[in-house]
Amino acid sequence: MKVPKGFLVSGIHCGIKRSKLDLGLIYGEEPLKVKGVFTTNSNPSYSVTLSKKNINKSIKAIIVNSGNANCHSHGQGLKDTEKIIEALAKELNVAKSSILIASTGIIGEKLPKEKIIAGFPKLIKNLGKKSNAFADSILTTDAFKKTSSVSLSKAFIAGFAKGAGMIYPNMATMLGFILTDVDISAGSYNKIFKEAVEKSFNSISIDGCMSTNDCVFLTSSKKVKLKTSAQINSFKKGLEKVCLDLAKQMVKDGEGASKFIEIEIKGARTESQAKKGGLAMANSNLFKCAIYGADANWGRIIAALGQVNIKVKENISIKASNLKQKNVKISIDLKDGNKSWTVYASDLTPEYVKLNGKYS
Amino acid sequence: MKVPKGFLVSGIHCGIKRSKLDLGLIYGEEPLKVKGVFTTNSNPSYSVTLSKKNINKSIKAIIVNSGNANCHSHGQGLKDTEKIIEALAKELNVAKSSILIASTGIIGEKLPKEKIIAGFPKLIKNLGKKSNAFADSILTTDAFKKTSSVSLSKAFIAGFAKGAGMIYPNMATMLGFILTDVDISAGSYNKIFKEAVEKSFNSISIDGCMSTNDCVFLTSSKKVKLKTSAQINSFKKGLEKVCLDLAKQMVKDGEGASKFIEIEIKGARTESQAKKGGLAMANSNLFKCAIYGADANWGRIIAALGQVNIKVKENISIKASNLKQKNVKISIDLKDGNKSWTVYASDLTPEYVKLNGKYS
Repeated sequence: MKVPKGFLVSGIHCGIKRSKLDLGLIYGEEPLKVKGVFTTNSNPSYSVTLSKKNINKSIKAIIVNSGNANCHSHGQGLKDTEKIIEALAKELNVAKSSILIASTGIIGEKLPKEKIIAGFPKLIKNLGKKSNAFADSILTTDAFKKTSSVSLSKAFIAGFAKGAGMIYPNMATMLGFILTDVDISAGSYNKIFKEAVEKSFNSISIDGCMSTNDCVFLTSSKKVKLKTSAQINSFKKGLEKVCLDLAKQMVKDGEGASKFIEIEIKGARTESQAKKGGLAMANSNLFKCAIYGADANWGRIIAALGQVNIKVKENISIKASNLKQKNVKISIDLKDGNKSWTVYASDLTPEYVKLNGKYS
Repeated sequence: MKVPKGFLVSGIHCGIKRSKLDLGLIYGEEPLKVKGVFTTNSNPSYSVTLSKKNINKSIKAIIVNSGNANCHSHGQGLKDTEKIIEALAKELNVAKSSILIASTGIIGEKLPKEKIIAGFPKLIKNLGKKSNAFADSILTTDAFKKTSSVSLSKAFIAGFAKGAGMIYPNMATMLGFILTDVDISAGSYNKIFKEAVEKSFNSISIDGCMSTNDCVFLTSSKKVKLKTSAQINSFKKGLEKVCLDLAKQMVKDGEGASKFIEIEIKGARTESQAKKGGLAMANSNLFKCAIYGADANWGRIIAALGQVNIKVKENISIKASNLKQKNVKISIDLKDGNKSWTVYASDLTPEYVKLNGKYS
């Protein structure tokens, strides 16, 4: 997959992992417009803390490492992260505040900053329009690369992600990078991005655990001016498609997962009620076990909805596709309004428990 | 186990289950003082709804059925429950508002009220001071009976419970009945009960799922007047011991569970912060998988605490007993204050998933 106009990317092995690619770079030929959505975990990684500080500045580059979460490892963690940023800024000849950083990997181990800094010359030398190495460099336990793209009439959207839903919070769960060349007003840009994230990355769950490192960035090189509302609308649709595509890939890559579950809640009073109900089911161990075992135990749905304060009516309708198939769709009509929301989840399997019982 | 002065109990088979005891009765020779704590699930059983209505009346009896949750089964569910209460009131010659009801079993199936009503004469005939049959009649998938008692100088506390923590919300999870003969002020009675429930039944978790049927009742025949604060204090300690003992038995009976985990959070700013942190761990699938696999993956603790907004310091201390033993104790010192709380949990195992994947 190529990247949009105005971007260069690369990925290399710098030595955090034994042999796989572990360091990636997104570079803007000119300053990039960047918006970010970060984990709300109270113990964020040093990388998240630093990126939140810089996010509203003029951005030239995003550095990403995999194999180490850069979180809660030592008292000098934030200072060390600043040193990495300073070294990269010097190498790229840009302001240190113009750099963002994202990390993914195990929590509590010191990031080998010397290895990362030593890798910068090669990382910069490899910058180009092809994205294979970058897409590889951000992965941890992922079974496959996660990319998605949409071509608009003139513009382009390219998305990269790593993660298996919430399945590996200790491995820092998910990172997402969406690159585009559209130029639209800051207000629309922000609003469209937030909505797309809500419908995709914030509507999936593997096990309800929240990572210390999650972040998603929407970055634009602003090369293609969108003028009409039709153009803006097609960008909005394209962005939603890319985000949802990446989010579904994460759920499908949930280690130990045997099924992909689509949960539609309709007939709700508000979208937020529908989403809350869907996520309550997506996070219910008992519901997920029932799907794993193809056991149509709908009392668990009533209990899960009641747990998040959704009072169901006697005439609630619950429809499900064949639970024995790999892809399961559950549609619940609350018959209480006309709003709906869809969430995506994996099932809970004995393999999930075994994998996560022997991790570190 | 005998019951305190002023109480009679019994348990029979009425036909909800194939052959096991499924109907129990607690009867006060004179009106009982009863306090209840109920599930906060928005889709409570008809039994919970009716008992909440009567709880502040003068109570003469509590009827309990197992094998059916009496929840969300049909539009006439509440009316049918009222008919059961009316029939029992007539048989006992008491006011219908003086009866409480608790049910436990599968959600969504119609309660066979005729079988229950037909069992009343035998149930009443069997009333006595011995509690074995009652303790049996409230069980569902429990592997063993859960009882506990404490003798005070003159008074007595007898506790009965059913449940395996939150492991079977579809089987209505937990019911608790504490019988005593103490007579103390309503204010102390209520306060001591609430505190004991907080430290026991509200401090355990198997899988974070919330039942539609949970309730715990503290009932007193008021035969023994407590006068000194030392007497009241020993009642408080005795009640806490009985509640905690029953709660721990539930965790140990968690089907599929291979370990009993005691999680102590100390050095917290408030008790509520400590409890929140402990429950976040008790409800984290990843933490529970790590304990199952004896994998000392402490990054999962940092992530779980951060998920509930507890910012940990760099000098947090995490101590654990040998993770390979059946009983595991984890002690976490947040070093942020002097408050503490202890919660109890089971681990998450492949057997849990298998059992709950083939339930109904």
